[in-house]
Amino acid sequence: MRIGVIGAGALGLYYGAMLQRAGHEVCFLLRRDFEAISRNGLKVFSLNGDFHLAQVEGYRKASEIGEVDLVLVGLKTFANQQLIKLVRPLIGENTVILTLQNGLGNEDLLAAAFGADHVLGGVAFLCSNRGEPGEVHHLGEGRIKLGEYGGGLSARSGELATIFSTAGVPCEASDDLLRIRWEKLVWNIPFNGLCALTGRSVTDLLQHRATRELITSMMHEVTTAANHQALAAPIEITSFVERMLQLSAAMSGYRPSMMIDRLEGRPLELQAIYEIPLAHALEAKSPMPQVDVIYRCLSVGEKDLQP
Amino acid sequence: MRIGVIGAGALGLYYGAMLQRAGHEVCFLLRRDFEAISRNGLKVFSLNGDFHLAQVEGYRKASEIGEVDLVLVGLKTFANQQLIKLVRPLIGENTVILTLQNGLGNEDLLAAAFGADHVLGGVAFLCSNRGEPGEVHHLGEGRIKLGEYGGGLSARSGELATIFSTAGVPCEASDDLLRIRWEKLVWNIPFNGLCALTGRSVTDLLQHRATRELITSMMHEVTTAANHQALAAPIEITSFVERMLQLSAAMSGYRPSMMIDRLEGRPLELQAIYEIPLAHALEAKSPMPQVDVIYRCLSVGEKDLQP
Repeated sequence: MRIGVIGAGALGLYYGAMLQRAGHEVCFLLRRDFEAISRNGLKVFSLNGDFHLAQVEGYRKASEIGEVDLVLVGLKTFANQQLIKLVRPLIGENTVILTLQNGLGNEDLLAAAFGADHVLGGVAFLCSNRGEPGEVHHLGEGRIKLGEYGGGLSARSGELATIFSTAGVPCEASDDLLRIRWEKLVWNIPFNGLCALTGRSVTDLLQHRATRELITSMMHEVTTAANHQALAAPIEITSFVERMLQLSAAMSGYRPSMMIDRLEGRPLELQAIYEIPLAHALEAKSPMPQVDVIYRCLSVGEKDLQP
Repeated sequence: MRIGVIGAGALGLYYGAMLQRAGHEVCFLLRRDFEAISRNGLKVFSLNGDFHLAQVEGYRKASEIGEVDLVLVGLKTFANQQLIKLVRPLIGENTVILTLQNGLGNEDLLAAAFGADHVLGGVAFLCSNRGEPGEVHHLGEGRIKLGEYGGGLSARSGELATIFSTAGVPCEASDDLLRIRWEKLVWNIPFNGLCALTGRSVTDLLQHRATRELITSMMHEVTTAANHQALAAPIEITSFVERMLQLSAAMSGYRPSMMIDRLEGRPLELQAIYEIPLAHALEAKSPMPQVDVIYRCLSVGEKDLQP
C-alpha cells in the first residue's frame, strides 16, 4: 500500500515508521526533519524496541508525493487552514483519507473538500514526542480506534484496522466515529486545558483535591454532552468517567500535548478540542459551562477574536 | 492619634505615610524595609506629589510598639495565621482596629480574638506598589470605604473617615460593611484570579471578547451572591457591573495584586478572595460555579489540601 503522511510530527512519524517497517511504501511530507531524514533515515526509540529505517521517502512538497492509497493525517489542527491544500495532491479516485487529528471538525473539512466517501477518522491513544531531527520517541500506548466518517462498519475500515494491527499498532474499527471522538474528548477537554492553563502535569492535578474534583466534574459535563449527540448507544457516564480517571492515575507526570504546545510557544488546538465541541454541545442542548470557562481562559492571546 | 501599622506593604506604607504627614504618630511594624527606613526615612512617590518623611518610627517587633489608638491592618491575608499575634501587643481598652485587607474573614478573626466592638473593616481602592526598601509608589486612586464590623453607622466610623480625609485620603463611612466588602469582590474575584491564572493584564482580558464575556458573567455571579447575603439594600446588578467594567477599562495595563503575587512567587490570597466568599455564597444558596472553576485552577500547588 502506498501511504502519504501529512503532518509528520510525533504521531505521523511514529505511525508512518511502523507502517513502513511492515512493508508499506510510506511517503512523509517533512519540514523540520527533511534534511536529517534524507541523510540518515528515521530512528524510532520505542518501549517495544528501537529500530532504524535507513531509507525513508521524505518530501518537501505534497505535490511531489502524488497519488497514494491512504493519506494519514497527523497535522496539528491549528494548521488546518493548510489541510486541504496539503492533502489534495495525494488524492486519487480510490484514495482513503484517515485523519488521526485531535478533536472535532477535521473529517468535516476533508469531506467537504474531497467527498464524504473518502474520509475516515480515528483517535490515537499514543504517548510519543519528537526528539532531535530524524528521531521519534514512543513512550507509551499507541492503539488506534477508527471509523467511517458517515458512521457504520465497512470492509475498508476493517481492512485498515488489520493493516495497523499487522504493523504492530493495535487498532480496532468502530461503527460509531462520533462516539469514539467524544470519548477521547472526555479525557482531552479537562486534561489538555487544565494542564496548559496551570502548567501542571496530569499527576499534579489528580493529586490535588480541588482540581481532581474539577476534572471529574468536567468529565461528567463532556460525557453528558456526548450522550446528547446522535450516538448509536449512550455512554454509561459514571463507569466511563471512573475508568478515565483510573487510566489517568497511571500516567506518571504526563504532560498533555496542549501543555507542551503552550510551554513551547506554539498555538493551542482550541478550535478542535474546545470551540467545536462547545458549539455541538450547545446545539444539542447540553451546554458545558465549566469547559466554557477553561476555554475562555485558554483563548486569551491565542488568536484575534472580534473585539 | 497614635497609630500602629501592621503589614507595611504598599498599602500600609502609603496610608501610614499619609497619616504621619498629617500629624499623627505612626508606628510601622517592618521587616524588609526596617534598615532602609531607620536610616533614611520613607519616600513616597505619588501622582499627587512626592514627599519624604525623614523620621519614621519603625519597629521589628509588635511588642515594642505597645498600645495604640488605632491599628491599621494591611497584612496580606495569606499571612493571617500571624495576624492575632501581631496585633495583640497594640491593643488597649479603647483601641480601634481597622483592617483594610482583601476579601472576607479578616474582621471575623479580629473580632473573635479582641471583641467585635474593637473592629472595623474597610476596602481600599488603591493602586500602589513597593519600590526599593524605604520607598513606596502611589500610582492611582487611594480612597477608602470603611464600616463597623457589626454594621450600622457610628460616631467613630465617621471620625475615622474624617481622619483619613483630612490626611488627603478620600474616605467615607458606610453603614453596611458587608456590602462594601462584596462590592469590592465583584471586581477582585474575576480580575485577580483571571489575571493571575493567565498572566494577562486587566486591559488584555477586557480587549479579548471571550474573557471580557467571562468577566462580565462572573461579575453577575458575584453580585447575585452578594444580594443573597444579608445586605441592607440589594445591589442593582446590571448597572453596578456596567460601572465596574467602565472603571476597569480605564486601568491601562493594570496588573492586580494576585497576578503580581504569582509572578513574584508569593502565595495567593485564595482564602479571603475565593474560599470564604464561595462558602458564604453556597450557604446563601447562590453558588458561583464559574468562580469555583477559577478558584480550583488557582489552588493547585498553593497549599496542601487533603489529597
